[in-house]
Amino acid sequence: MQDKVLAMKMLVTNDDGPFSLGLWLLYEAVKDLGEVCVVAPETPKSASGLGLTLHKPLRVNRLEINGVKVYLINGTPSDIVYVALNVITGPVDIVLSGINIGDNTSAQVILSSGTVGAALQAALAGIPGIAFSVAVDSPEKLEEKELSESIKRGVHVLVESVKEKGFPENIDVLNVNFPNALTNEFKAVPLAKLRYSNIIVKRTDPRGLHYYWLYGQPLKPEPGTDVYTILVEKKIAVTPISIQYLAKPLDAIKGFVAHLNSKMAKLKR
Amino acid sequence: MQDKVLAMKMLVTNDDGPFSLGLWLLYEAVKDLGEVCVVAPETPKSASGLGLTLHKPLRVNRLEINGVKVYLINGTPSDIVYVALNVITGPVDIVLSGINIGDNTSAQVILSSGTVGAALQAALAGIPGIAFSVAVDSPEKLEEKELSESIKRGVHVLVESVKEKGFPENIDVLNVNFPNALTNEFKAVPLAKLRYSNIIVKRTDPRGLHYYWLYGQPLKPEPGTDVYTILVEKKIAVTPISIQYLAKPLDAIKGFVAHLNSKMAKLKR
Repeated sequence: MQDKVLAMKMLVTNDDGPFSLGLWLLYEAVKDLGEVCVVAPETPKSASGLGLTLHKPLRVNRLEINGVKVYLINGTPSDIVYVALNVITGPVDIVLSGINIGDNTSAQVILSSGTVGAALQAALAGIPGIAFSVAVDSPEKLEEKELSESIKRGVHVLVESVKEKGFPENIDVLNVNFPNALTNEFKAVPLAKLRYSNIIVKRTDPRGLHYYWLYGQPLKPEPGTDVYTILVEKKIAVTPISIQYLAKPLDAIKGFVAHLNSKMAKLKR
Repeated sequence: MQDKVLAMKMLVTNDDGPFSLGLWLLYEAVKDLGEVCVVAPETPKSASGLGLTLHKPLRVNRLEINGVKVYLINGTPSDIVYVALNVITGPVDIVLSGINIGDNTSAQVILSSGTVGAALQAALAGIPGIAFSVAVDSPEKLEEKELSESIKRGVHVLVESVKEKGFPENIDVLNVNFPNALTNEFKAVPLAKLRYSNIIVKRTDPRGLHYYWLYGQPLKPEPGTDVYTILVEKKIAVTPISIQYLAKPLDAIKGFVAHLNSKMAKLKR
């Protein structure tokens, strides 16, 4: 009985959909730590950010994949956390999102990341969120037993530590990125600003009309950032995210706003 | 000639699409301050956050609306800023997004806001962004001459001030929310955490299948927040956003990460 009481209630989700190896690696890594409910987007929803579906109805379907009961929702990762907490799981102790195929490092990437978006949506509901990603180019890399076991061990140690010691205070989300290499070392590290250059590739369709692909080339990683930690140092980057800090530098605009008000006062006369 | 050199190059966009009165109010408010290029999503893209379209091609169409040349793109507000800066306008001095029908206050709302998303996407490209929103329930409210003139004056004063004094340092985005009332007063104010409760409305379709709507009820606004400023004090809320601060509280996880590494070290043996 005691074990049952101490068991964590976990919501596991992702942005790559139910057939991603990353989702199942995450599930396998934490299933012995408590009660796990898997709720995933029906189809891949990469780069959804914290997008929400306000103008279309959402549907929930239940099925079994890999012998596990899974709920599928026709929405974004943020929708999924929203719906899951309200109508599927009820309150949980933690939301685990991932493991994303491809790293989610830098402010540029995480602000558009569905994986991180799900964890942030959890945080808005007052529930700690952890986003997991791995710097591999393709899902096939996760079929390498040694790499996937190493990642699984890292995820297990991290979630078990949250279970034992609680979630770090004043932090909303832990953004965790594994390198494309075996490692046992975690490192606390801030976000880089940028990960990729913004490139547009112009093409012409068979009817002679132009279209564009968004694309990016990796930028040279700066030491002391999450990008550098996973790509160069090959350690597990752990980055704390706190949404209350987004608007922290209020003093930086006090003078500017005083100027606005003095202009407004002159207008009135 | 001097006037031309001093003229600001502005990209005006929104998340409500080209037929939103808010877009045209913004355009009217700033058109005498320099060169304006209007690029909007083809269809409304509310609550897109910083979602990006990576897996579908984007198209650009040019047409004239209200006598003004407008570019339309089949993407999210973030896509639009990305594409516009790369293939339509080239670098600009500032990106202005809005005016959104409905306020974008609180961390909860801005993280999913397309209007704010466009401004943040600009910031990632190194260009200052300003997101404008107004706390009205419906576009028709902007047909009230006195209210729309008051908002236009506020927008003009703000953007003119940026032109004269530059954008506040260390700030990526100014998030500006107008109240649903006449005012001449700006206030620098931080983000509330939440704006709405998370509600799910369950319905049954004519075929007997269930579907869900995401919904929210306004929460009681807390003094000292952007929500309180616009709803209760009825002032113009100006909130500075700095993405580098998102991961600022690094010290908060140093002990936790040391614990993780000690667990990992024990595993190895």
